[in-house]
Amino acid sequence: MPDRINKIELKPPYLLFLGDVADDIDAKTSLGLAYWRPELCIGQCRLGTPVDTGLPDMTPTEAAAAGACSLIVGVAPVGGSFPELWIESLKEGARAGLDIVAGMHTRLPQVPGLAEAAEAGGGRLVDVREPPKGIPIGSGKRRPGRRVLTVGTDCVVGKKYTALVLERDMKARGLNATFRATGQTGIMIAGEGIPIDAVVSDFVAGAAEVLSPANDPGHWDVIEGQGSLFHPGYAGVTLGLLHGAQPEAIVLCHEATRTVIDRWPDYPIPDIPAVIDRYLEAGRLTSPAIRCAGASINTSKLPPSERNEYLNKLSDLIGLPCVDPVVDGVGPLIDNLEGAS
Amino acid sequence: MPDRINKIELKPPYLLFLGDVADDIDAKTSLGLAYWRPELCIGQCRLGTPVDTGLPDMTPTEAAAAGACSLIVGVAPVGGSFPELWIESLKEGARAGLDIVAGMHTRLPQVPGLAEAAEAGGGRLVDVREPPKGIPIGSGKRRPGRRVLTVGTDCVVGKKYTALVLERDMKARGLNATFRATGQTGIMIAGEGIPIDAVVSDFVAGAAEVLSPANDPGHWDVIEGQGSLFHPGYAGVTLGLLHGAQPEAIVLCHEATRTVIDRWPDYPIPDIPAVIDRYLEAGRLTSPAIRCAGASINTSKLPPSERNEYLNKLSDLIGLPCVDPVVDGVGPLIDNLEGAS
Repeated sequence: MPDRINKIELKPPYLLFLGDVADDIDAKTSLGLAYWRPELCIGQCRLGTPVDTGLPDMTPTEAAAAGACSLIVGVAPVGGSFPELWIESLKEGARAGLDIVAGMHTRLPQVPGLAEAAEAGGGRLVDVREPPKGIPIGSGKRRPGRRVLTVGTDCVVGKKYTALVLERDMKARGLNATFRATGQTGIMIAGEGIPIDAVVSDFVAGAAEVLSPANDPGHWDVIEGQGSLFHPGYAGVTLGLLHGAQPEAIVLCHEATRTVIDRWPDYPIPDIPAVIDRYLEAGRLTSPAIRCAGASINTSKLPPSERNEYLNKLSDLIGLPCVDPVVDGVGPLIDNLEGAS
Repeated sequence: MPDRINKIELKPPYLLFLGDVADDIDAKTSLGLAYWRPELCIGQCRLGTPVDTGLPDMTPTEAAAAGACSLIVGVAPVGGSFPELWIESLKEGARAGLDIVAGMHTRLPQVPGLAEAAEAGGGRLVDVREPPKGIPIGSGKRRPGRRVLTVGTDCVVGKKYTALVLERDMKARGLNATFRATGQTGIMIAGEGIPIDAVVSDFVAGAAEVLSPANDPGHWDVIEGQGSLFHPGYAGVTLGLLHGAQPEAIVLCHEATRTVIDRWPDYPIPDIPAVIDRYLEAGRLTSPAIRCAGASINTSKLPPSERNEYLNKLSDLIGLPCVDPVVDGVGPLIDNLEGAS
């Protein structure tokens, strides 16, 4: 039922390109893909990296012969541009007919020789940082289908991870759920999406509407949040996404030890009840009955002995379930979301 | 003291190009330029239009000989593309060395033959819908200088007009004030600015910082607002602009008879005190002492006998000066702004 205009769409199965990156952090998108979508990954292409996704090693030519449709550059090189060593592999993949997919500062058509190789091979060059054309202005019209948006006290507090766990565990319960990606890593994992922070500002709410269109009444869109209403650089993106998503519920994501916005030390994070209130107040514009289903907390920086106490205290404070999705899963959040149906 | 990177900048004096538009509404940018910046306008170029700015009629060649530096297309053709009739005049101006300035759906380099004419003449093609390169992410850092932002209950309620009257009347009092343009008409009037709604969403707050940079402690930036926090399509733009502008004060703009968002009839406009509270709450993130200096109301759709009553009642309700800038000017707003210095 959902239409699929105006979104980036990737073609599986994938060859995960790892190059010669130094460690797991630089390869987190590839590792995320192998973890969240193993059924879509056919192999990995390594050029001397110690990182290992556990998938079979293949050259791009071998991967194409084995049925791969896309080579995914799910790694971050130092400096954001493509090393010489990588370019030969990407061209090999392109000549073999693979789509080449990346989200780096250097755009794919600017990589020397790559456009010609893609032309010869017949595949696409797909940049997941490049928003699709034709995104409309947000209509604000109510649409059927259930939607939950992960929101955060800050960037990098687990909004994408929480949304992916929600999707996985909803499906495990037999619910009909779709993860909706709004950032480049999420788009690579989902195989589709819109890089919301790269959309021209007038069209952010419209992009969120396109991304989570009208759907069956029982279907859940689990939408990856971006930024934070409390971030002095990005709050506008967050608000546009919230308005366009029209979620019936939000899940608040937070890192337990964070007290100020990361790298904006003059910006304290308000206390959690105030954060939730502000999100709900802002979200009511397009979703009048919006509610918070609970909190998803990254407690990894707390001593293990303090984690339960932290979550219990917060749960008492806000009167909602609070989980660490890595430790506890998100069962209580899904209970709460479904309970309101 | 302000630096001038990353902004569109136009070169006066101007030839106002009117083409063959049907009426004043289609020529409102040209009429605005002639009204607000007569000292920068050298003539008008008409191709059969009944509209008259009162400036001397000139061909582009005559205007260039008289010292004009830019031909400004301050008119909106039906459909947003350039009629054949206009193109010859634009090419004539470009060949004569004028910058050609426009903000239409069709970009200037796509107009047949125009790029070649500009190359030959040595002038620029300036599109005021095209944001400058290199806009940073909003830093949120506090900066010196005084700033007031016009905000609105909706689009098209007088935010640009109010900002221009504030600048004019502040200057008439001997204050040091600069209108900061955020939309295409404003940019043509100011001769510089950033089309904020065309900026990629991640950079909206940063664009507002660049637009209203650190300045002398007594200098006022009067910043043109965009959209509305209550608009389901554009609120994210509005919030990013509010955060980047870091205004010490806002002036709320409203059209007296409007009860719902124009063309979004499902979205009622909250009552004015609630509107002001929401703007102040949102603005406090980057400007903790933000306050409202009063309201600027377009009362033109009220019966004249009801205007004073409307303004007096509203002023009692919010405890702040309320004016119709066309009828009363904005003196009480400037009194309030300056009173807090």
